[in-house]
Amino acid sequence: MGEENQLERAYNQTAYKLAGNGERNIQVLKEAFQNIEDDLESDKYGKGRIIEDFQKKMAVLLGKEDAVFFPSGTMAQQIALRIWCDEKGTGKVAYHPLSHLEIHEEGGLKELHHIDSVFLTKRDQVIDLNDVIKMEDGVAAILLELPQREIGGQLPSFETLEQISQYCRDRQIRLHLDGARLLEVLPYYQKTAHDVCSLFDSVYLSLYKGIGGIAGAILAGDNDFIKQSKVWKRRHGGDLISLYPYIIPADYYFDMRSNKMEQYYEEAKEVAERFNACYGISTLPAVPVSNMFHVQFRQAKEQVEPILLELEQQTGIGITSYLKEMDEHSCYFEVHMGDGYSKIPKELLDRTFEQLDESMKHWFNQ
Amino acid sequence: MGEENQLERAYNQTAYKLAGNGERNIQVLKEAFQNIEDDLESDKYGKGRIIEDFQKKMAVLLGKEDAVFFPSGTMAQQIALRIWCDEKGTGKVAYHPLSHLEIHEEGGLKELHHIDSVFLTKRDQVIDLNDVIKMEDGVAAILLELPQREIGGQLPSFETLEQISQYCRDRQIRLHLDGARLLEVLPYYQKTAHDVCSLFDSVYLSLYKGIGGIAGAILAGDNDFIKQSKVWKRRHGGDLISLYPYIIPADYYFDMRSNKMEQYYEEAKEVAERFNACYGISTLPAVPVSNMFHVQFRQAKEQVEPILLELEQQTGIGITSYLKEMDEHSCYFEVHMGDGYSKIPKELLDRTFEQLDESMKHWFNQ
Repeated sequence: MGEENQLERAYNQTAYKLAGNGERNIQVLKEAFQNIEDDLESDKYGKGRIIEDFQKKMAVLLGKEDAVFFPSGTMAQQIALRIWCDEKGTGKVAYHPLSHLEIHEEGGLKELHHIDSVFLTKRDQVIDLNDVIKMEDGVAAILLELPQREIGGQLPSFETLEQISQYCRDRQIRLHLDGARLLEVLPYYQKTAHDVCSLFDSVYLSLYKGIGGIAGAILAGDNDFIKQSKVWKRRHGGDLISLYPYIIPADYYFDMRSNKMEQYYEEAKEVAERFNACYGISTLPAVPVSNMFHVQFRQAKEQVEPILLELEQQTGIGITSYLKEMDEHSCYFEVHMGDGYSKIPKELLDRTFEQLDESMKHWFNQ
Repeated sequence: MGEENQLERAYNQTAYKLAGNGERNIQVLKEAFQNIEDDLESDKYGKGRIIEDFQKKMAVLLGKEDAVFFPSGTMAQQIALRIWCDEKGTGKVAYHPLSHLEIHEEGGLKELHHIDSVFLTKRDQVIDLNDVIKMEDGVAAILLELPQREIGGQLPSFETLEQISQYCRDRQIRLHLDGARLLEVLPYYQKTAHDVCSLFDSVYLSLYKGIGGIAGAILAGDNDFIKQSKVWKRRHGGDLISLYPYIIPADYYFDMRSNKMEQYYEEAKEVAERFNACYGISTLPAVPVSNMFHVQFRQAKEQVEPILLELEQQTGIGITSYLKEMDEHSCYFEVHMGDGYSKIPKELLDRTFEQLDESMKHWFNQ
């Protein structure tokens, strides 16, 4: 705990950050609002120009009839699954065992919506067509997360997505996309958002991952689905009198970063290669398929921490603020590439990774 | 509909507004943030200085062990009632038939929490001790709204509150305060927030009514209650990565307006008197007990609308942007006094109410 705080403190003091879009501070809001006219009227309970224009823009991007802005993805996704369960008259959905709904939402889907979940595959696997085919009966909807965050942001092939989509359509099983990081996977697939979303009945997109907004989410689908989702948004307490404090930054940073996902993807591959060249370190996946990956150490957390601490203090590059234990003998952290990386001088980067490699060798290979 | 839009348009073009704290536009946010340091770090999933400091401040104000910031009152109140129902092992609560939960939340309490509600009194009455005594068995919690908004913001006496509180305590029935407008009733009761809240097990306070923030709510109670409410906040999708876009304005406008409630209350009584002096117009209540009241016309909506339209266009004072039908022969609108009223020149006000009186007489008493 003391060590953890030390690493976090060292990270916060570095001049450069390897990953991310910069600090989550008040400046993020101020910048987004600086060119907005003072007398622009607030949205009001889901109505008004600010929210309606942005929802239309997102519906067009995703190729769906309509879209609705939600304060959170947690709310948006539970609601999507609830609508599909009500349609089918069952209370069962299927997803990955490390889905956000399963591990980060305090069981909201079950506690609020009385929906049970079936796991489609093992914790360390990507969902495949066979997982769907052998799934038990009575599932109203399948949720696919692209990329699968908790296993380093891995992806099924686009052909697999097409096959799963066709299989579900043939059997009246609804397919929902957890596209928190949808834009981030488009460069790998070499597809448009429209192409990917056409395989799904409903789509969630986060506005503060690669895009780097403050908070908020979009849920998109056909008109009837969106109409129902607005009723549920009110029931959940998400139909706020004013959502513009999130919508205006979402729109601002979308315009700034939505066309930078190819750059982040290329940089992710480059940085992963640098980590993989270091002794005792590997990335998951070995070659990233989005802007994200995990960095894994074949050493215990308490042994790796002082190395990273020293590295950050000496080079001024923030590699990570934390390490998570995998087991007694290994640990990892997550990387999401963003605007920070391109600001780091190349020479300093080279030196930093050289030092990391040397330190790992020095400590674990004497 | 055409008429309604005309009145709304005329209202929006007036130089002065009789009620409210000014327009809900972007300036409200910009003003609150103008003196905040750019590098102040965002709250993160309910942690961090911004959210923790404000929650502490509100807990002290309300005299409760702890408090939690919610994006909406809808979410906060459903959760409060759910916790009290789970504690008792029943799914039944009691409140006024025009409670926000009953008429503005699309049945969220029932659809999400499977909680049934019992009405304590008739639609046009304030809840009294007798209503509570004759209530059916098995109720886990009673929600009291102070003031009762949908009937013009009426209040029970403080003695009635004390009696209901004692009755509930004796019978292990939890008492929850819908204090959306709690600060607004303190001048009438001549009590502190602490005094009123001590009669309740849990308290909700809105941050954009009299206070005039952007959105958001506080839920306060004992430590265990707040701990549980944070779990439910996550389940509802309300535990956003950043809530500071609402918290900073809430804090800013709380400091600006929380001590102006006495002024708003006095102005409400003054303005109600002006309306009551006009032909065919009365207020509910006749003498306001907070900053709010209803203005009722003993004429049909379509007959009153052109009078108000002309009045607003000629005087430049926005009286109301809408009228709601009560029945074929009467209509009303709601008034919440705020910063707008004291900006209107006294002479212009006098002239406006004279003209209103004359127009009403002219049209309905020839």
